[in-house]
Amino acid sequence: MKSLGSLEQLSEALRRLPGVGPKSALRMTYHLLQHDREGAELIGRAMLSALNMVHNCSLCNTFTENETCELCLNQERERSMLCVVESPSDQLMIEQTMTYKGLYFVLMGRLSPLDGVGPQHIHLEKLVRRATDGQVREVVLATNFNNEGEATAHYISETLKARGLLVSRLARGVPVGGELEYVDPGTIARAMLDRRVT
Amino acid sequence: MKSLGSLEQLSEALRRLPGVGPKSALRMTYHLLQHDREGAELIGRAMLSALNMVHNCSLCNTFTENETCELCLNQERERSMLCVVESPSDQLMIEQTMTYKGLYFVLMGRLSPLDGVGPQHIHLEKLVRRATDGQVREVVLATNFNNEGEATAHYISETLKARGLLVSRLARGVPVGGELEYVDPGTIARAMLDRRVT
Repeated sequence: MKSLGSLEQLSEALRRLPGVGPKSALRMTYHLLQHDREGAELIGRAMLSALNMVHNCSLCNTFTENETCELCLNQERERSMLCVVESPSDQLMIEQTMTYKGLYFVLMGRLSPLDGVGPQHIHLEKLVRRATDGQVREVVLATNFNNEGEATAHYISETLKARGLLVSRLARGVPVGGELEYVDPGTIARAMLDRRVT
Repeated sequence: MKSLGSLEQLSEALRRLPGVGPKSALRMTYHLLQHDREGAELIGRAMLSALNMVHNCSLCNTFTENETCELCLNQERERSMLCVVESPSDQLMIEQTMTYKGLYFVLMGRLSPLDGVGPQHIHLEKLVRRATDGQVREVVLATNFNNEGEATAHYISETLKARGLLVSRLARGVPVGGELEYVDPGTIARAMLDRRVT
C-alpha cells in the first residue's frame, strides 16, 4: 500500500503538535478524515484564523488580538507593580486568586540552556524596557518553582536589581491544606527558613 | 483576564482531536502561536487540503485521492480473495507480512454498540456489495482479536455466509517466539483446540 500525498502531509503536520508522535498523528488523521470531518474543518480554519489574528501585547507580551491587551489598558490596575509569569495559563491562575491588582509581563517561556532557550528567547529586553518605564516600582517574580523557573527568576532578578528596581518572589512554603507528613523535606526546610512571626 | 476570540476558538477546535483534553488543547495552542507558527500554518493548510482531496475508495473503502485506490486497481492481486480489516493501519501491517496477495475491504471502524457504533457505521452494505461481485470466493476476517473485533467478525461472518461465501478468520494461537510460561491461558486453550497435524 502506497501512502497518499495529502493524508501523509496531514499526518506529518500533526506531529508538530507538542506531545504528538507518529502513531498518534496517524490515529488523529484517520479519525478526523473518517469520523469528524467537521472537526477537521474547524481545526484547519481556527488555526489559520488564529495565526492571522493573534499576536503579542505591546506591553505585557501576552496573546491578544489588539495592539495592547485589555488588562494592560485597564486603568484600575496598579501601574507600580509588575508580575512576571512564564505563560498566559500562569497569569490566569494568579488572576483567579484575586490577590493581585498590578500588571503582568508574560515571558512566553523560561530559560532552559539545555533546550537552547537563552535570555533572547524569553523577551528579556522587552521586560527590561517595560520594567524601567518609570512607573513600575516592584517586580514580583512568579515563574515556576522548578529548576528552570528558579533559574529564570534568578537571572531576571539580577538583571532588574542592577537597574534599581525592587524585585520580589512568590513565597515558598507548605501548601494550604498540606500535612507535614506528606510534604517533601525540601519544602519544609524552606518553610522553616522563611518562617513568619505571627 | 478575558480569553480571546480566535485563541479560544483554536483551543476548542483542537479538543476535537482524539485524546486531547482542555489542558492539552490550550498547551498546543500556546505552543503553536508562540513557538511554531510555521507548524501551525502547515497543520491548518494540510487539514483543509486533506479534507478536499481524501475520500474513500469506491471498492475497498480505504482512504485515497482517486476514485479507486492503487491496490484495488493492481491487476496482479488475486481478485478471488477479500481481506476485511478495521483500519488502514491494519491493512498496512498485513501488507508488510507479504503473505497475502488478494484484495482488501477496510471497515474504518468496528462494531461497538456501547459507543453507538452499529452495522450501518462500518459500511457493511458496501462490504456485502463488494463481496458479492461474483469474483470474490473467500473473505478473510482480519479484525482485531479483542471483544469488539471478535463481535464484528462474527456479525460479518454470519452476514456473508448467508450469501454463500467462504468466510475464514486469521488463526489464533501462541505468538511466534512466545514462551508458554508467559502466554495467557486463554491463548493456550485456543491453540490447543486449533492444534494442527504436522
